[in-house]
Amino acid sequence: MRALPLHQGARGLNDDAAVIEIGGETLVLTHDTMAEGTHFRADANLRDVAWKLVASNLSDLAAKGAEPVGVMLSYPLGDEDAEFVSGLWQALDAMDVQLLGGDTFAAKGARTIGLTAIGRATHIPVPARSGAQIGDAIYVTGTLGRAMLGFEGVQEHLDAFNRPEPRMLEGRTLAPCVTAMMDISDGLLLDAFRMAEASEATFAIEAAAVPVASADRRDECMRWGDDYELLFTLREGAESPVPASRIGTVEPLGFAPLVLDGHPLVNQQGLGFQHG
Amino acid sequence: MRALPLHQGARGLNDDAAVIEIGGETLVLTHDTMAEGTHFRADANLRDVAWKLVASNLSDLAAKGAEPVGVMLSYPLGDEDAEFVSGLWQALDAMDVQLLGGDTFAAKGARTIGLTAIGRATHIPVPARSGAQIGDAIYVTGTLGRAMLGFEGVQEHLDAFNRPEPRMLEGRTLAPCVTAMMDISDGLLLDAFRMAEASEATFAIEAAAVPVASADRRDECMRWGDDYELLFTLREGAESPVPASRIGTVEPLGFAPLVLDGHPLVNQQGLGFQHG
Repeated sequence: MRALPLHQGARGLNDDAAVIEIGGETLVLTHDTMAEGTHFRADANLRDVAWKLVASNLSDLAAKGAEPVGVMLSYPLGDEDAEFVSGLWQALDAMDVQLLGGDTFAAKGARTIGLTAIGRATHIPVPARSGAQIGDAIYVTGTLGRAMLGFEGVQEHLDAFNRPEPRMLEGRTLAPCVTAMMDISDGLLLDAFRMAEASEATFAIEAAAVPVASADRRDECMRWGDDYELLFTLREGAESPVPASRIGTVEPLGFAPLVLDGHPLVNQQGLGFQHG
Repeated sequence: MRALPLHQGARGLNDDAAVIEIGGETLVLTHDTMAEGTHFRADANLRDVAWKLVASNLSDLAAKGAEPVGVMLSYPLGDEDAEFVSGLWQALDAMDVQLLGGDTFAAKGARTIGLTAIGRATHIPVPARSGAQIGDAIYVTGTLGRAMLGFEGVQEHLDAFNRPEPRMLEGRTLAPCVTAMMDISDGLLLDAFRMAEASEATFAIEAAAVPVASADRRDECMRWGDDYELLFTLREGAESPVPASRIGTVEPLGFAPLVLDGHPLVNQQGLGFQHG
């Protein structure tokens, strides 16, 4: 794909969102698809699928400090349209974003539902994955592993799995302060690996410093994903303007992009949720 | 869907594209999906599918007189990725548009490929389906039925089916002149019906005036669809600034939105390509 004619705003396809300048504004564009069998189970409630589709896209806007302008939907008509529309309504209402348009169509078999979110940058330059500097402190918002526990049916974490809330306000507050930022929907370790690679540095993370929902399962909490939290880096000594945990330090690029408790992790395999 | 929180620019979901104002600019956004089994056959060449995906989206921009800014792709990885990327490269290159980003993912079964196109309006107000006025003349560009003949294997029309070229220049030239405009990818009669409904008028069309690729199959040529031509209305007496055929007149809303050779067509059934 990187060989294709790329827009300058595509950032070489190495980021979660495209950034384009239009008139006096900077727009942030992102697209996330949810495919049955990959991102949701055939028996999933389409209300929840609709909600997560909106949340996952807005989370990418949050990581850019962007405020949503609207969303475009791609939806295959089927048996559960009422449930989907109901969940979509709840999500758009709760996250204060509106539908711009899209496409509905007939399709057979496993469903593929797509959403494009358009946002307006609130701070220039728009944070990227690639800005982390040697010596920066690494932070993450929230508590990881909640979506995993919710998926397993733990009552107090059900909403974290079914109805995640993207960190819109935190993203806008952080945008002027961070050197790099992204969301960690694919899992902390995998996304930290990607941010380190994009920044051409090594991220040294201390597992014990990572806030997890289940201390017995710290490793899984760092890998499972689906937590719509923000990973970001700040200059050493800078204070985070939002509640967040310091989990490590950016080091000169060494043997591996990611070092966990002193152990180098040399490739992305097994670090988190890979979906093509 | 119309009950959802709609952006003002969604135009009530009654148009082919959303129109939003950002900075001093007006953006036009559209999304078209191609689903295997509905929009393309399982044995279709993915090069052609990629091309048509880009063409169908850009055709919606053309109908708004917009120039493309970029596209966002949603693509399920599979066996024919090289073919798809090759066709996408050709289309982006030929139509002078760049990839902004998107999402690739693993999926099983019938493929669903989506594209969001972002364009910049070249004329304000941006043409809508809804602007046709009583007494206006109805025009269409090109020759209809070529895609149908190409689908059937007629050599000289193969490209019309596999490699359609959206009317970008015509759309931009027409935008300041028309009272209403849309593309007719779903078939002339169906799309004329929709434009008449949106304009709250009756479109009276004379079949003999419609330029068709096969005079023996005039009716099929007006219904088959997949011709990326433009349907538009001009004030009576105005001349079309691009080559086009006058095919009828806008009349006060009568018994049916569409009248073909004096026969009212009261519903959309059978008029063209319906896909949910």
